[in-house]
Amino acid sequence: MQQFAQFNPQARILLGPGPSNVNPRVLNAMAAPMLGHLDPDYVGLMEEIKKLLRIVFQTANDVTFPVSGTGSAGMESALANLIEEGDEAVVGVNGVFGARAAECAERMGARVHRVEAEWGRIVEPEKIEAALKSCQRPKLVAVVHAETSTGVLQPVEEIAQMAHRYGALMVLDAVTSLACIPVPIDRWQIDACYSCTQKGISAPPGLSPFTLSERAMAVIRGRRTKCRSWYLDVSMIAQYWGAERAYHHTAPISMNYALYEALRIVVEEGLEARWQRHRRNAAALQAGVAAMGLKFVAQEGHRLPQLTAVQAPAGIDEAAIRTALLRTYNMEIGAGLGPFKGKVWRIGLMGESSQRNNVVLVLNALEQLLSAAGIEIARGRAQAAADAVYAQSA
Amino acid sequence: MQQFAQFNPQARILLGPGPSNVNPRVLNAMAAPMLGHLDPDYVGLMEEIKKLLRIVFQTANDVTFPVSGTGSAGMESALANLIEEGDEAVVGVNGVFGARAAECAERMGARVHRVEAEWGRIVEPEKIEAALKSCQRPKLVAVVHAETSTGVLQPVEEIAQMAHRYGALMVLDAVTSLACIPVPIDRWQIDACYSCTQKGISAPPGLSPFTLSERAMAVIRGRRTKCRSWYLDVSMIAQYWGAERAYHHTAPISMNYALYEALRIVVEEGLEARWQRHRRNAAALQAGVAAMGLKFVAQEGHRLPQLTAVQAPAGIDEAAIRTALLRTYNMEIGAGLGPFKGKVWRIGLMGESSQRNNVVLVLNALEQLLSAAGIEIARGRAQAAADAVYAQSA
Repeated sequence: MQQFAQFNPQARILLGPGPSNVNPRVLNAMAAPMLGHLDPDYVGLMEEIKKLLRIVFQTANDVTFPVSGTGSAGMESALANLIEEGDEAVVGVNGVFGARAAECAERMGARVHRVEAEWGRIVEPEKIEAALKSCQRPKLVAVVHAETSTGVLQPVEEIAQMAHRYGALMVLDAVTSLACIPVPIDRWQIDACYSCTQKGISAPPGLSPFTLSERAMAVIRGRRTKCRSWYLDVSMIAQYWGAERAYHHTAPISMNYALYEALRIVVEEGLEARWQRHRRNAAALQAGVAAMGLKFVAQEGHRLPQLTAVQAPAGIDEAAIRTALLRTYNMEIGAGLGPFKGKVWRIGLMGESSQRNNVVLVLNALEQLLSAAGIEIARGRAQAAADAVYAQSA
Repeated sequence: MQQFAQFNPQARILLGPGPSNVNPRVLNAMAAPMLGHLDPDYVGLMEEIKKLLRIVFQTANDVTFPVSGTGSAGMESALANLIEEGDEAVVGVNGVFGARAAECAERMGARVHRVEAEWGRIVEPEKIEAALKSCQRPKLVAVVHAETSTGVLQPVEEIAQMAHRYGALMVLDAVTSLACIPVPIDRWQIDACYSCTQKGISAPPGLSPFTLSERAMAVIRGRRTKCRSWYLDVSMIAQYWGAERAYHHTAPISMNYALYEALRIVVEEGLEARWQRHRRNAAALQAGVAAMGLKFVAQEGHRLPQLTAVQAPAGIDEAAIRTALLRTYNMEIGAGLGPFKGKVWRIGLMGESSQRNNVVLVLNALEQLLSAAGIEIARGRAQAAADAVYAQSA
């Protein structure tokens, strides 16, 4: 008989691209007794979750609920429900997650116009417009608001206006942006948006906050063919999250308890205060990184506050630095993806993890480890640079 | 400002078709600190989960892991990965979940041969064979082991042998069977099987235990076209759950903590003991139901031990009985689905919920409520009939 020991993980400081640290209130919420997915008390909770998600998405959209899967399931849900065989989709690709959306749209039957940009740079709105012009009848435009692989903040509003001018729907990946920076769905006229629970919201991963405009719902109601995904078919799921309460699949009950508690914390803090906290801590981190003499991946003026991609110094074993951070300081930062593998660190300050003490810790830990590895950096300046940012914003 | 109150659900006795009650050990497991999805400690846990799932599925299949979605996501994963446009699929349909698999296979591009049977009866193996004969080149056969809408236990082994004789893969829906009754994947030569966490395993809903045979993996590796689902594409996910640890999506970390602890409990009890517990409690429940004079939905000889579908007496408001059970006894039983809506109760005794005290409670509660509603039933006999079963098996 094999022995399976109790699992007692050590607490980490999570400064990677997600998951972020989870507030004990949220962890404890999952220990509440199980309810059935049609229990009147659970149905009441579903209504409260929808209200909270509408606050965080800044939307009045009726169809606003968490998809029963992670952020990538939210992406697939948006694309599977909107795309029919042969539809034209314009997708901005300047990192892993834009490429993923393009790939997913193709699998759903779309003819995809990829609008590429160098990793680390934004997708230029003019190039999106050129792609829209080249379409016969564009169905949708999709861009990634916060490209998690590069730390780039993509301008969205102008592209959404453009999409609508060309009669297309606007799809936004807000996986790494929601509850870190503003995602004003209604003001920007976004038609479909998906996010995740484990970054800005700081709940465990497992659900994808999701919202669809009335325009998007009209397109879905008017489909000639069925959605390729049964599991993600919004025409059925909206009847479970809506007044009909028609059973579709058994919702992840405990995960929804966690999401509710995490959203309560977001609303208690207030969106404005939360965004400002993310901006302040990121400014301090980025000042410290720059003071060390390290370089950023994302172009200036378009750096995310919640995720900073840093170029690892030439010749360094970047994985060894991450391992040392984990072993010595119980601290996780992210590795580079795709072409950035072995070349980039991604430091997240998302949700609960966006704290001054974490900024101080990661800057000093990196300084120590890089010095010990014999890398030439400007020593003794990082924390001072960070502190100066806090002094200024106090 | 809207007020969002803390959610403190009352504990229920969950005797519906799932979720079942969750052991406090499992609820507490989710309160463990969050880890990153590539953290070495979490990767170690993934290996242990795979081992435990192989024990429960009675398989040596390498590709055995939990899909990051509920049972229906597991179903879609099996069908999306195995089916390519134009493939022929033979699907047994004798209830909601067989119909769902047929529908999902069609959305994935299959030409589906539905083998229908009356709800409450098994799908006859000979009719499956006739459908296989009518195919040019059958890709797969899919049946539901435990049809949750009717309480029917489907014979599987003979059909699996048949599928292989005709060169087809065998797909099994074990959503309501795994960890309640034997699901011997290797002995029966099942090629793809999916289950859920919230029934026999008694963890919260949100993951789908999943296993693929080497035959199935060879078919997946040999696909001419890409899997229609990006989120569920096993060719990528197996590289995250395998030695490569290639990032695909962020796994639902806390849900996997819960699954691990729930599987530990299953293995501590032992599969044989667990199956026997389910049989004994079901025999007692069914003896009590019969003693009251109520009728079963499922044909004799093919009734599930973990889920008993009972015909509601003519003229009764069955929903009012369920509401009274919930309000008076904090007890959930399930309603009928589809054509059984308003006509059937579904009483689950799954995982943690399969307990003698629950049998006693539900029989006496039903007897009280039916008598109070003026329904003619044999009174005072149900518990005695149940007790006789326990006395016999003691």
